[in-house]
Amino acid sequence: MHLQLALDRMTIDTAIEVTKEVYNEIDWIEIGTSLIKEFGIESIQAMKQEFPDKILVADMKTMDNAKYECQLCFEAGADVLTVMGAAPAITVETCLNEAAKRKKQVMIDLLNVNLERLPQLLQYEEAIFCLHFSKDQQELSAPPQQHPLLFFPALEGVRIAVAGGISIDTVETVKRMNPSIVIVGSAITKAVDKKKAARELKQAILFRGDYK
Amino acid sequence: MHLQLALDRMTIDTAIEVTKEVYNEIDWIEIGTSLIKEFGIESIQAMKQEFPDKILVADMKTMDNAKYECQLCFEAGADVLTVMGAAPAITVETCLNEAAKRKKQVMIDLLNVNLERLPQLLQYEEAIFCLHFSKDQQELSAPPQQHPLLFFPALEGVRIAVAGGISIDTVETVKRMNPSIVIVGSAITKAVDKKKAARELKQAILFRGDYK
Repeated sequence: MHLQLALDRMTIDTAIEVTKEVYNEIDWIEIGTSLIKEFGIESIQAMKQEFPDKILVADMKTMDNAKYECQLCFEAGADVLTVMGAAPAITVETCLNEAAKRKKQVMIDLLNVNLERLPQLLQYEEAIFCLHFSKDQQELSAPPQQHPLLFFPALEGVRIAVAGGISIDTVETVKRMNPSIVIVGSAITKAVDKKKAARELKQAILFRGDYK
Repeated sequence: MHLQLALDRMTIDTAIEVTKEVYNEIDWIEIGTSLIKEFGIESIQAMKQEFPDKILVADMKTMDNAKYECQLCFEAGADVLTVMGAAPAITVETCLNEAAKRKKQVMIDLLNVNLERLPQLLQYEEAIFCLHFSKDQQELSAPPQQHPLLFFPALEGVRIAVAGGISIDTVETVKRMNPSIVIVGSAITKAVDKKKAARELKQAILFRGDYK
Protein backbone atom coordinates (compact mmCIF):
# COMPACT_ATOMS: atom_id res chain seq x y z
CA MET A 1 0.00 0.00 0.00
CA HIS A 2 1.21 3.44 -0.94
CA LEU A 3 0.42 6.69 0.83
CA GLN A 4 -0.57 9.51 -1.53
CA LEU A 5 -0.47 13.06 -0.17
CA ALA A 6 -3.23 15.24 -1.63
CA LEU A 7 -2.45 18.95 -1.77
CA ASP A 8 -5.48 21.26 -2.03
CA ARG A 9 -6.57 24.79 -1.22
CA MET A 10 -3.10 26.22 -0.70
CA THR A 11 -0.48 28.12 -2.70
CA ILE A 12 2.19 26.32 -4.72
CA ASP A 13 4.79 27.52 -2.21
CA THR A 14 2.86 26.04 0.69
CA ALA A 15 2.40 22.80 -1.26
CA ILE A 16 6.16 22.57 -1.71
CA GLU A 17 6.80 23.39 1.93
CA VAL A 18 4.29 20.80 3.24
CA THR A 19 5.66 18.14 0.89
CA LYS A 20 9.24 18.77 2.04
CA GLU A 21 8.13 18.34 5.64
CA VAL A 22 6.60 14.91 5.06
CA TYR A 23 8.70 13.80 2.09
CA ASN A 24 10.15 10.66 3.71
CA GLU A 25 6.80 9.42 4.99
CA ILE A 26 4.80 9.60 1.76
CA ASP A 27 4.97 7.74 -1.56
CA TRP A 28 2.95 9.62 -4.17
CA ILE A 29 2.18 13.34 -4.39
CA GLU A 30 -1.17 14.58 -5.70
CA ILE A 31 -1.48 18.05 -7.12
CA GLY A 32 -5.10 18.71 -6.22
CA THR A 33 -7.74 19.98 -8.65
CA SER A 34 -7.92 23.22 -6.69
CA LEU A 35 -4.21 23.92 -7.29
CA ILE A 36 -4.56 23.17 -10.99
CA LYS A 37 -7.65 25.38 -11.40
CA GLU A 38 -6.21 28.19 -9.30
CA PHE A 39 -2.64 28.27 -10.62
CA GLY A 40 -2.77 26.24 -13.82
CA ILE A 41 -0.23 23.80 -15.16
CA GLU A 42 2.52 25.76 -13.43
CA SER A 43 1.49 23.94 -10.24
CA ILE A 44 2.53 20.63 -11.83
CA GLN A 45 5.76 22.02 -13.31
CA ALA A 46 6.81 23.51 -9.99
CA MET A 47 6.18 20.29 -8.07
CA LYS A 48 8.01 18.22 -10.70
CA GLN A 49 11.01 20.51 -10.44
CA GLU A 50 11.09 20.25 -6.65
CA PHE A 51 10.29 16.56 -6.40
CA PRO A 52 11.54 14.79 -9.53
CA ASP A 53 11.86 11.42 -7.77
CA LYS A 54 8.29 11.00 -6.54
CA ILE A 55 5.30 9.84 -8.56
CA LEU A 56 3.18 12.93 -9.28
CA VAL A 57 -0.58 12.57 -9.67
CA ALA A 58 -2.31 15.45 -11.44
CA ASP A 59 -5.91 15.52 -10.23
CA MET A 60 -7.16 16.88 -13.55
CA LYS A 61 -10.64 15.33 -13.14
CA THR A 62 -10.86 15.24 -16.94
CA MET A 63 -14.42 15.26 -18.32
CA ASP A 64 -13.63 16.17 -21.95
CA ASN A 65 -10.80 17.34 -24.20
CA ALA A 66 -8.81 14.32 -23.08
CA LYS A 67 -5.97 14.55 -25.57
CA TYR A 68 -5.20 18.16 -24.74
CA GLU A 69 -5.48 17.67 -20.99
CA CYS A 70 -3.19 14.61 -21.15
CA GLN A 71 -0.66 16.55 -23.18
CA LEU A 72 -0.79 19.50 -20.77
CA CYS A 73 -0.27 17.53 -17.61
CA PHE A 74 2.08 14.79 -18.82
CA GLU A 75 4.38 17.28 -20.54
CA ALA A 76 4.41 19.31 -17.32
CA GLY A 77 5.77 16.28 -15.50
CA ALA A 78 2.77 14.38 -14.15
CA ASP A 79 3.07 10.59 -13.96
CA VAL A 80 -0.62 9.90 -13.35
CA LEU A 81 -3.71 11.77 -14.58
CA THR A 82 -7.18 11.45 -13.08
CA VAL A 83 -10.20 11.15 -15.37
CA MET A 84 -13.79 11.03 -14.16
CA GLY A 85 -15.53 7.69 -14.53
CA ALA A 86 -18.66 9.81 -15.07
CA ALA A 87 -17.16 11.14 -18.33
CA PRO A 88 -18.11 9.64 -21.70
CA ALA A 89 -16.32 6.35 -22.48
CA ILE A 90 -14.38 7.95 -25.33
CA THR A 91 -12.85 10.43 -22.88
CA VAL A 92 -11.70 7.72 -20.48
CA GLU A 93 -10.33 5.66 -23.37
CA THR A 94 -8.49 8.60 -24.90
CA CYS A 95 -6.80 9.24 -21.55
CA LEU A 96 -5.76 5.58 -21.33
CA ASN A 97 -4.32 5.69 -24.85
CA GLU A 98 -2.52 8.99 -24.34
CA ALA A 99 -1.04 7.74 -21.07
CA ALA A 100 0.05 4.41 -22.58
CA LYS A 101 1.85 6.19 -25.41
CA ARG A 102 3.98 7.96 -22.82
CA LYS A 103 4.24 5.05 -20.36
CA LYS A 104 2.18 7.06 -17.89
CA GLN A 105 -0.84 6.00 -15.84
CA VAL A 106 -4.51 6.88 -15.45
CA MET A 107 -6.54 6.92 -12.27
CA ILE A 108 -10.28 6.66 -12.92
CA ASP A 109 -12.19 8.62 -10.27
CA LEU A 110 -15.36 6.66 -9.45
CA LEU A 111 -17.09 9.65 -7.83
CA ASN A 112 -20.84 9.37 -8.47
CA VAL A 113 -20.40 6.52 -10.96
CA ASN A 114 -23.48 4.33 -10.89
CA LEU A 115 -23.39 0.56 -10.55
CA GLU A 116 -24.50 0.12 -14.14
CA ARG A 117 -21.45 1.93 -15.50
CA LEU A 118 -18.95 0.37 -13.09
CA PRO A 119 -18.44 -3.01 -14.84
CA GLN A 120 -17.68 -1.23 -18.12
CA LEU A 121 -15.02 0.87 -16.43
CA LEU A 122 -13.48 -2.13 -14.68
CA GLN A 123 -12.61 -3.57 -18.07
CA TYR A 124 -9.80 -1.00 -18.31
CA GLU A 125 -7.44 -3.27 -16.43
CA GLU A 126 -4.45 -1.00 -16.77
CA ALA A 127 -6.14 1.79 -14.79
CA ILE A 128 -6.15 2.55 -11.09
CA PHE A 129 -9.70 2.92 -9.73
CA CYS A 130 -10.24 5.62 -7.14
CA LEU A 131 -13.07 5.14 -4.67
CA HIS A 132 -13.79 8.73 -3.85
CA PHE A 133 -15.99 10.06 -1.06
CA SER A 134 -15.87 13.68 -2.14
CA LYS A 135 -15.21 16.75 -0.03
CA ASP A 136 -18.74 18.03 -0.65
CA GLN A 137 -20.20 14.68 0.39
CA GLN A 138 -18.07 14.73 3.54
CA GLU A 139 -19.42 18.13 4.47
CA LEU A 140 -22.98 16.91 3.97
CA SER A 141 -22.88 14.04 6.41
CA ALA A 142 -21.50 13.76 9.92
CA PRO A 143 -18.00 12.33 10.19
CA PRO A 144 -18.50 8.59 9.63
CA GLN A 145 -17.49 6.03 12.22
CA GLN A 146 -16.38 3.89 9.35
CA HIS A 147 -15.31 5.09 5.95
CA PRO A 148 -18.50 5.12 3.83
CA LEU A 149 -16.77 3.58 0.83
CA LEU A 150 -16.34 0.42 2.83
CA PHE A 151 -19.82 -0.45 1.64
CA PHE A 152 -18.87 -0.11 -2.01
CA PRO A 153 -19.08 -3.39 -3.94
CA ALA A 154 -15.89 -5.41 -3.72
CA LEU A 155 -13.52 -4.76 -6.57
CA GLU A 156 -11.48 -7.84 -7.28
CA GLY A 157 -8.34 -8.01 -9.35
CA VAL A 158 -7.95 -4.29 -9.99
CA ARG A 159 -5.71 -1.72 -8.39
CA ILE A 160 -7.72 0.60 -6.20
CA ALA A 161 -7.08 3.89 -4.49
CA VAL A 162 -9.29 5.21 -1.72
CA ALA A 163 -9.86 8.90 -1.04
CA GLY A 164 -12.06 11.12 1.04
CA GLY A 165 -11.54 12.41 4.53
CA ILE A 166 -9.26 9.52 5.52
CA SER A 167 -7.58 10.01 8.89
CA ILE A 168 -5.84 7.87 11.46
CA ASP A 169 -9.32 7.14 12.87
CA THR A 170 -10.73 5.68 9.65
CA VAL A 171 -7.63 4.22 8.02
CA GLU A 172 -8.25 0.78 9.53
CA THR A 173 -11.61 0.38 7.80
CA VAL A 174 -10.13 1.70 4.56
CA LYS A 175 -7.47 -1.02 4.73
CA ARG A 176 -10.16 -3.68 4.61
CA MET A 177 -10.70 -2.73 0.98
CA ASN A 178 -7.09 -3.74 0.33
CA PRO A 179 -6.23 -0.64 -1.69
CA SER A 180 -2.96 -0.14 -3.53
CA ILE A 181 -3.09 3.55 -2.67
CA VAL A 182 -4.48 5.41 0.32
CA ILE A 183 -5.00 9.10 -0.42
CA VAL A 184 -4.82 11.52 2.51
CA GLY A 185 -5.17 15.30 2.43
CA SER A 186 -6.24 17.40 5.41
CA ALA A 187 -5.35 14.77 8.03
CA ILE A 188 -1.74 15.51 7.09
CA THR A 189 -1.78 19.03 5.63
CA LYS A 190 -3.81 20.51 8.48
CA ALA A 191 -2.09 18.63 11.30
CA VAL A 192 -0.04 20.67 13.75
CA ASP A 193 2.76 18.12 13.45
CA LYS A 194 2.48 17.10 9.79
CA LYS A 195 5.46 14.77 9.84
CA LYS A 196 4.09 12.87 12.79
CA ALA A 197 0.63 12.63 11.24
CA ALA A 198 2.09 11.31 7.97
CA ARG A 199 4.33 8.84 9.78
CA GLU A 200 1.44 7.45 11.83
CA LEU A 201 -0.67 7.03 8.71
CA LYS A 202 2.18 5.38 6.85
CA GLN A 203 2.76 2.97 9.72
CA ALA A 204 -0.96 2.17 9.94
CA ILE A 205 -0.94 1.42 6.22
CA LEU A 206 2.17 -0.75 6.34
CA PHE A 207 0.95 -2.79 9.27
CA ARG A 208 -1.71 -4.80 7.51
CA GLY A 209 -2.90 -6.85 10.46
CA ASP A 210 -5.24 -9.60 9.34
CA TYR A 211 -5.57 -8.28 5.82
CA LYS A 212 -3.59 -9.73 2.96
CA MET B 1 -31.11 33.71 -28.09
CA HIS B 2 -27.63 34.70 -27.03
CA LEU B 3 -24.39 33.76 -28.72
CA GLN B 4 -21.70 32.55 -26.31
CA LEU B 5 -18.12 32.49 -27.57
CA ALA B 6 -16.14 29.56 -26.14
CA LEU B 7 -12.38 30.12 -25.86
CA ASP B 8 -10.27 26.97 -25.63
CA ARG B 9 -6.79 25.69 -26.37
CA MET B 10 -5.15 29.10 -26.77
CA THR B 11 -3.16 31.56 -24.66
CA ILE B 12 -4.85 34.27 -22.61
CA ASP B 13 -3.44 36.86 -25.02
CA THR B 14 -4.96 35.09 -28.01
CA ALA B 15 -8.27 34.76 -26.16
CA ILE B 16 -8.29 38.52 -25.61
CA GLU B 17 -7.34 39.20 -29.22
CA VAL B 18 -10.03 36.88 -30.64
CA THR B 19 -12.66 38.34 -28.35
CA LYS B 20 -11.81 41.90 -29.37
CA GLU B 21 -12.19 40.92 -33.01
CA VAL B 22 -15.73 39.56 -32.57
CA TYR B 23 -16.80 41.65 -29.57
CA ASN B 24 -19.78 43.30 -31.23
CA GLU B 25 -21.18 40.09 -32.63
CA ILE B 26 -21.21 37.99 -29.45
CA ASP B 27 -23.15 38.18 -26.20
CA TRP B 28 -21.47 35.99 -23.59
CA ILE B 29 -17.81 35.00 -23.28
CA GLU B 30 -16.79 31.58 -22.03
CA ILE B 31 -13.38 31.02 -20.52
CA GLY B 32 -12.90 27.38 -21.50
CA THR B 33 -11.86 24.62 -19.12
CA SER B 34 -8.57 24.30 -20.99
CA LEU B 35 -7.69 27.94 -20.27
CA ILE B 36 -8.55 27.55 -16.60
CA LYS B 37 -6.54 24.33 -16.22
CA GLU B 38 -3.60 25.67 -18.22
CA PHE B 39 -3.35 29.19 -16.79
CA GLY B 40 -5.47 29.09 -13.66
CA ILE B 41 -7.80 31.73 -12.31
CA GLU B 42 -5.64 34.41 -13.91
CA SER B 43 -7.43 33.57 -17.17
CA ILE B 44 -10.72 34.76 -15.64
CA GLN B 45 -9.19 37.86 -14.05
CA ALA B 46 -7.55 38.91 -17.29
CA MET B 47 -10.75 38.52 -19.31
CA LYS B 48 -12.78 40.40 -16.69
CA GLN B 49 -10.31 43.27 -16.80
CA GLU B 50 -10.45 43.44 -20.60
CA PHE B 51 -14.19 42.87 -20.97
CA PRO B 52 -15.97 44.14 -17.86
CA ASP B 53 -19.26 44.69 -19.70
CA LYS B 54 -19.84 41.18 -21.03
CA ILE B 55 -21.23 38.21 -19.14
CA LEU B 56 -18.29 35.92 -18.37
CA VAL B 57 -18.88 32.18 -18.11
CA ALA B 58 -16.15 30.24 -16.31
CA ASP B 59 -16.25 26.66 -17.60
CA MET B 60 -15.06 25.26 -14.28
CA LYS B 61 -16.80 21.88 -14.82
CA THR B 62 -17.00 21.57 -11.04
CA MET B 63 -17.22 17.99 -9.75
CA ASP B 64 -16.37 18.63 -6.08
CA ASN B 65 -15.10 21.33 -3.72
CA ALA B 66 -17.97 23.52 -4.87
CA LYS B 67 -17.64 26.28 -2.30
CA TYR B 68 -13.97 26.86 -3.01
CA GLU B 69 -14.37 26.71 -6.78
CA CYS B 70 -17.30 29.16 -6.64
CA GLN B 71 -15.28 31.53 -4.50
CA LEU B 72 -12.28 31.29 -6.82
CA CYS B 73 -14.12 32.00 -10.02
CA PHE B 74 -16.76 34.47 -8.81
CA GLU B 75 -14.19 36.57 -6.99
CA ALA B 76 -12.07 36.57 -10.14
CA GLY B 77 -14.98 38.15 -12.01
CA ALA B 78 -17.00 35.29 -13.48
CA ASP B 79 -20.76 35.81 -13.76
CA VAL B 80 -21.64 32.18 -14.48
CA LEU B 81 -19.99 28.97 -13.28
CA THR B 82 -20.46 25.57 -14.88
CA VAL B 83 -20.99 22.51 -12.70
CA MET B 84 -21.29 18.96 -14.01
CA GLY B 85 -24.75 17.42 -13.78
CA ALA B 86 -22.82 14.17 -13.25
CA ALA B 87 -21.49 15.50 -9.92
CA PRO B 88 -23.13 14.55 -6.62
CA ALA B 89 -26.34 16.51 -5.87
CA ILE B 90 -24.71 18.27 -2.93
CA THR B 91 -22.07 19.72 -5.27
CA VAL B 92 -24.66 21.08 -7.71
CA GLU B 93 -26.71 22.50 -4.85
CA THR B 94 -23.72 24.14 -3.19
CA CYS B 95 -22.88 25.86 -6.48
CA LEU B 96 -26.47 27.12 -6.77
CA ASN B 97 -26.37 28.46 -3.21
CA GLU B 98 -22.96 30.08 -3.59
CA ALA B 99 -24.03 31.70 -6.85
CA ALA B 100 -27.34 32.95 -5.40
CA LYS B 101 -25.53 34.58 -2.46
CA ARG B 102 -23.57 36.66 -4.96
CA LYS B 103 -26.39 37.15 -7.49
CA LYS B 104 -24.45 35.04 -9.96
CA GLN B 105 -25.61 32.14 -12.11
CA VAL B 106 -24.94 28.44 -12.57
CA MET B 107 -24.93 26.47 -15.80
CA ILE B 108 -25.41 22.74 -15.27
CA ASP B 109 -23.50 20.79 -17.91
CA LEU B 110 -25.61 17.77 -18.86
CA LEU B 111 -22.68 15.92 -20.44
CA ASN B 112 -23.18 12.17 -19.92
CA VAL B 113 -26.08 12.72 -17.49
CA ASN B 114 -28.43 9.76 -17.69
CA LEU B 115 -32.19 10.07 -18.13
CA GLU B 116 -32.78 8.90 -14.59
CA ARG B 117 -30.84 11.81 -13.10
CA LEU B 118 -32.19 14.45 -15.48
CA PRO B 119 -35.60 15.11 -13.82
CA GLN B 120 -33.87 15.70 -10.47
CA LEU B 121 -31.57 18.28 -12.04
CA LEU B 122 -34.42 20.02 -13.83
CA GLN B 123 -35.90 20.89 -10.45
CA TYR B 124 -33.19 23.54 -10.07
CA GLU B 125 -35.27 26.09 -11.95
CA GLU B 126 -32.82 28.93 -11.48
CA ALA B 127 -30.09 27.12 -13.42
CA ILE B 128 -29.23 27.15 -17.10
CA PHE B 129 -29.02 23.62 -18.55
CA CYS B 130 -26.29 23.00 -21.06
CA LEU B 131 -26.87 20.26 -23.62
CA HIS B 132 -23.31 19.36 -24.36
CA PHE B 133 -22.03 17.15 -27.18
CA SER B 134 -18.44 17.04 -26.01
CA LYS B 135 -15.28 17.57 -28.03
CA ASP B 136 -14.19 13.97 -27.46
CA GLN B 137 -17.61 12.73 -28.63
CA GLN B 138 -17.36 14.92 -31.71
CA GLU B 139 -14.01 13.41 -32.59
CA LEU B 140 -15.44 9.91 -32.21
CA SER B 141 -18.24 10.24 -34.73
CA ALA B 142 -18.34 11.73 -38.20
CA PRO B 143 -19.54 15.33 -38.41
CA PRO B 144 -23.30 15.02 -37.97
CA GLN B 145 -25.75 16.21 -40.58
CA GLN B 146 -27.92 17.40 -37.74
CA HIS B 147 -26.74 18.31 -34.29
CA PRO B 148 -26.97 15.08 -32.26
CA LEU B 149 -28.48 16.82 -29.26
CA LEU B 150 -31.56 17.49 -31.32
CA PHE B 151 -32.67 14.03 -30.27
CA PHE B 152 -32.38 14.84 -26.58
CA PRO B 153 -35.72 14.77 -24.73
CA ALA B 154 -37.55 18.08 -24.92
CA LEU B 155 -36.83 20.35 -21.99
CA GLU B 156 -39.80 22.55 -21.31
CA GLY B 157 -39.86 25.63 -19.18
CA VAL B 158 -36.14 25.78 -18.42
CA ARG B 159 -33.38 27.91 -19.90
CA ILE B 160 -31.13 25.82 -22.08
CA ALA B 161 -27.77 26.31 -23.68
CA VAL B 162 -26.51 24.10 -26.48
CA ALA B 163 -22.83 23.34 -27.06
CA GLY B 164 -20.68 21.06 -29.14
CA GLY B 165 -19.26 21.61 -32.59
CA ILE B 166 -22.00 24.07 -33.59
CA SER B 167 -21.30 25.79 -36.91
CA ILE B 168 -23.27 27.73 -39.48
CA ASP B 169 -24.18 24.33 -41.00
CA THR B 170 -25.79 22.92 -37.87
CA VAL B 171 -27.13 26.05 -36.18
CA GLU B 172 -30.56 25.68 -37.80
CA THR B 173 -31.19 22.32 -36.18
CA VAL B 174 -29.88 23.62 -32.88
CA LYS B 175 -32.42 26.44 -33.04
CA ARG B 176 -35.25 23.91 -33.07
CA MET B 177 -34.42 23.23 -29.42
CA ASN B 178 -35.25 26.87 -28.70
CA PRO B 179 -32.16 27.50 -26.58
CA SER B 180 -31.51 30.69 -24.65
CA ILE B 181 -27.83 30.37 -25.40
CA VAL B 182 -25.97 28.94 -28.38
CA ILE B 183 -22.32 28.18 -27.55
CA VAL B 184 -19.83 28.29 -30.40
CA GLY B 185 -16.07 27.74 -30.23
CA SER B 186 -13.96 26.62 -33.18
CA ALA B 187 -16.45 27.72 -35.84
CA ILE B 188 -15.54 31.26 -34.79
CA THR B 189 -12.08 30.99 -33.24
CA LYS B 190 -10.62 28.94 -36.10
CA ALA B 191 -12.33 30.85 -38.94
CA VAL B 192 -10.10 32.82 -41.27
CA ASP B 193 -12.51 35.75 -40.96
CA LYS B 194 -13.63 35.44 -37.35
CA LYS B 195 -15.79 38.56 -37.38
CA LYS B 196 -17.69 37.37 -40.43
CA ALA B 197 -18.17 33.88 -38.95
CA ALA B 198 -19.48 35.34 -35.69
CA ARG B 199 -21.79 37.76 -37.52
CA GLU B 200 -23.29 35.00 -39.66
CA LEU B 201 -23.90 32.84 -36.62
CA LYS B 202 -25.43 35.75 -34.71
CA GLN B 203 -27.74 36.53 -37.63
CA ALA B 204 -28.73 32.87 -37.97
CA ILE B 205 -29.57 32.85 -34.27
CA LEU B 206 -31.56 36.07 -34.37
CA PHE B 207 -33.61 35.04 -37.36
CA ARG B 208 -35.78 32.48 -35.69
CA GLY B 209 -37.81 31.44 -38.74
CA ASP B 210 -40.73 29.28 -37.71
CA TYR B 211 -39.52 28.80 -34.17
CA LYS B 212 -40.90 30.82 -31.32
